[in-house]
Amino acid sequence: MTENEHPRIVVLGAGFGGLEFCKHFDDPNAQITLVDRTNHHLFQPLLYQVATAGLSAPDIAQPVRAILSDRPNLTVLLDEVEDIDLAGKKVMLQENVLTYDYLVLALGGCTSYFGHPEWEQFAPGLKTLEDALRIRSQVLLAFEKAETEPTPDAHERLMTIVVVGGGPTGVELAGAFAELARHVLKQDFRHIDAGETRVILIEAGPRLLAYLPPELSDSAQNQLQHLGVEVRTSTKVKNISEGRVDLENGETIWAANILWAAGVSATPLTKKLGVELDRAGRVKVKPDLSLPGHPEVFAVGDMALVLEKDGTPVPGVSPAAMQEAKHVANIIENDLSFAGSAPRPAFKYWDKGTMATIGRSAAVAKIGKFEFSGFLAWMAWLVIHLIFLVGFRNKISVLFQWFYSYIHYKRGARIITQIPSHSPPPTNVTSKSPASPVNK
Amino acid sequence: MTENEHPRIVVLGAGFGGLEFCKHFDDPNAQITLVDRTNHHLFQPLLYQVATAGLSAPDIAQPVRAILSDRPNLTVLLDEVEDIDLAGKKVMLQENVLTYDYLVLALGGCTSYFGHPEWEQFAPGLKTLEDALRIRSQVLLAFEKAETEPTPDAHERLMTIVVVGGGPTGVELAGAFAELARHVLKQDFRHIDAGETRVILIEAGPRLLAYLPPELSDSAQNQLQHLGVEVRTSTKVKNISEGRVDLENGETIWAANILWAAGVSATPLTKKLGVELDRAGRVKVKPDLSLPGHPEVFAVGDMALVLEKDGTPVPGVSPAAMQEAKHVANIIENDLSFAGSAPRPAFKYWDKGTMATIGRSAAVAKIGKFEFSGFLAWMAWLVIHLIFLVGFRNKISVLFQWFYSYIHYKRGARIITQIPSHSPPPTNVTSKSPASPVNK
Repeated sequence: MTENEHPRIVVLGAGFGGLEFCKHFDDPNAQITLVDRTNHHLFQPLLYQVATAGLSAPDIAQPVRAILSDRPNLTVLLDEVEDIDLAGKKVMLQENVLTYDYLVLALGGCTSYFGHPEWEQFAPGLKTLEDALRIRSQVLLAFEKAETEPTPDAHERLMTIVVVGGGPTGVELAGAFAELARHVLKQDFRHIDAGETRVILIEAGPRLLAYLPPELSDSAQNQLQHLGVEVRTSTKVKNISEGRVDLENGETIWAANILWAAGVSATPLTKKLGVELDRAGRVKVKPDLSLPGHPEVFAVGDMALVLEKDGTPVPGVSPAAMQEAKHVANIIENDLSFAGSAPRPAFKYWDKGTMATIGRSAAVAKIGKFEFSGFLAWMAWLVIHLIFLVGFRNKISVLFQWFYSYIHYKRGARIITQIPSHSPPPTNVTSKSPASPVNK
Repeated sequence: MTENEHPRIVVLGAGFGGLEFCKHFDDPNAQITLVDRTNHHLFQPLLYQVATAGLSAPDIAQPVRAILSDRPNLTVLLDEVEDIDLAGKKVMLQENVLTYDYLVLALGGCTSYFGHPEWEQFAPGLKTLEDALRIRSQVLLAFEKAETEPTPDAHERLMTIVVVGGGPTGVELAGAFAELARHVLKQDFRHIDAGETRVILIEAGPRLLAYLPPELSDSAQNQLQHLGVEVRTSTKVKNISEGRVDLENGETIWAANILWAAGVSATPLTKKLGVELDRAGRVKVKPDLSLPGHPEVFAVGDMALVLEKDGTPVPGVSPAAMQEAKHVANIIENDLSFAGSAPRPAFKYWDKGTMATIGRSAAVAKIGKFEFSGFLAWMAWLVIHLIFLVGFRNKISVLFQWFYSYIHYKRGARIITQIPSHSPPPTNVTSKSPASPVNK
């Protein structure tokens, strides 16, 4: 039957998982279709750098077509998944319908507000390039407003940045914003002192970077505080409204910039699959990463709950997604070579280590038994992220930007390219009179 | 009176003129306020590179505050001019009101549709970073649509780019798009051959780059045709609607991408000044560049009509704007030093030469008596644009991008960061069935 002559493999998502699968799957007879709603593969670990004006969007994104242009049997589709029909082996896209013999689900996750979707408009998350550009514009615009803002009270609100969530993204954002304000923007303004910017990092749990050993959490907290970040652990958020964060302890923080880095859940599409999900909406896959009852369908990365032999879940990090994708590629290759008779090994996660960066020569890292922090960890972080960044041009460009900003304490991408849809709260009460502060 | 102790100088616009004034005006007692509606100085000569995915936005833009951070007596305001009260010596901004002793108008120009504003939605112009990013997204999205588009007819429309206007911007856009399609996108697609992209350059006049000698116009046309651009001179546009250009000769061209590079007029604000304007809405200034009847108000750059002794108008190019700004800076300095008793010399334009780039190692240039074209002109263009590009980081970054794309024929910024508001016409008729081309 045609399936065996030219098996059709559909891969949904061009993130770390989907891309890795396409790079490693090697069967010239198979016909692969990769679907993504953007035209680029995004290097998410550096997304916070775009949000904090350290890098430009193209530095961390690479056109999917360009990455895979050497694959003659692969088609890239810019389209959005609307529904998946597991029984009919069909994927309904906005503008196409695809039939498959094998399906690889790698759609990743989205920001989760723990049942408070209404918070999103006041506290944007950081998942896409658009998110990053919007956050960059919003924060820079708040400083611009503060510059012409006469009342000290409003100053403080405009110059306060609250980051909710003490995971890697939250830690990186808080550190980067603290540096941006203290070292980069400080010289730029006349009526405000950007150095007085308050950056507050709120974490519900007892410590930051809970997935790391306690001593590294402490080190991260110390390094952040050294940068001037107010770290508030064991602090729960009760409500978020425009320019305002209410804590469970009754305290209220007023801030023009509120960023959400607290929760990630699987893409909502998993709900349409009709298979068992965990609380985060992730698909509970079998040890071979296939869906229960659907040996031809696999899920990898942030949308899959993968349990190791000892029952511990594989962490939602890019190395895990890439290892899972490779595993699936091998299984499908074997299936095709041995007409499905080949045994399917269980996935094993190899933890190469974890790290988080905090700022200029400040970071924490755990590689095997070894734990680093400070400059050494930062160098390791730099090197590893450069290696995995897709595209030679991007590697060089990013290396140059880092080197430059390391020497000059400057940020190259301080450009407001669009008025953000999450605009700062209307705190501007400048009187329209010649007495405005500007002419004083 | 306070004016003389701390004269207040308001500069409107942070383009080539406004920025040059702030760099050169040197009177520590004066208090300068620079107003711009964006937070960055845009290097417009390279804007077409962002539109054609050669450069990223931050490469050609620099935060105004950063450029002028060493000026203690200068305030930068991110605000938009709403009205100017010459009698009351006041500038009404959206969020502030400024009073001035001296006013420098450097608000530049905007795209003009020759009395057909309704064409703008179908044929965007190229004036701002947003314009460039929108055009980039629109063209790249059209190719993505073509890839899944089954009917050849629709293919052709999606892969046709019409550029209206044979001035420098039009020539640069047409050349860059031809190269993008033929050399960069060619490898990326499976179902379409991007090499078959039609790029049509339409010019109403008898030749391209009319401000250059005829032989250079011919050379430019030949170089464009060599790149595969269809050059149509002496061709007038009768009407533009969605995806469609109607010519006065009765011909109709269907194209998903129509770009307008035909006309520039002064900012509409000049109409509110109540002074004499020319057809393009430019202020007719006196030889010293001040407004008739208002020796304390000056206009420079694209919003000013400056006539030389022999009555010829100074061209609307950045070197002219910068020379005019310097002239005004000197006049105001003298005014302040000699309490207005100093004579005001007339402005003289020094033509350093003109050039236009067409593509990789293709350009035309006229410097003094000398005319170049091809590689030599291109090198000259490269060097000069690098020199004038603001910011060391940008110079290096852009140099690197050019070198890289020159070697690899790649474009680093092929990233769709937003769905353009001018989206391609709805030519997508892909049937929602498994018979879609993708699975064929």
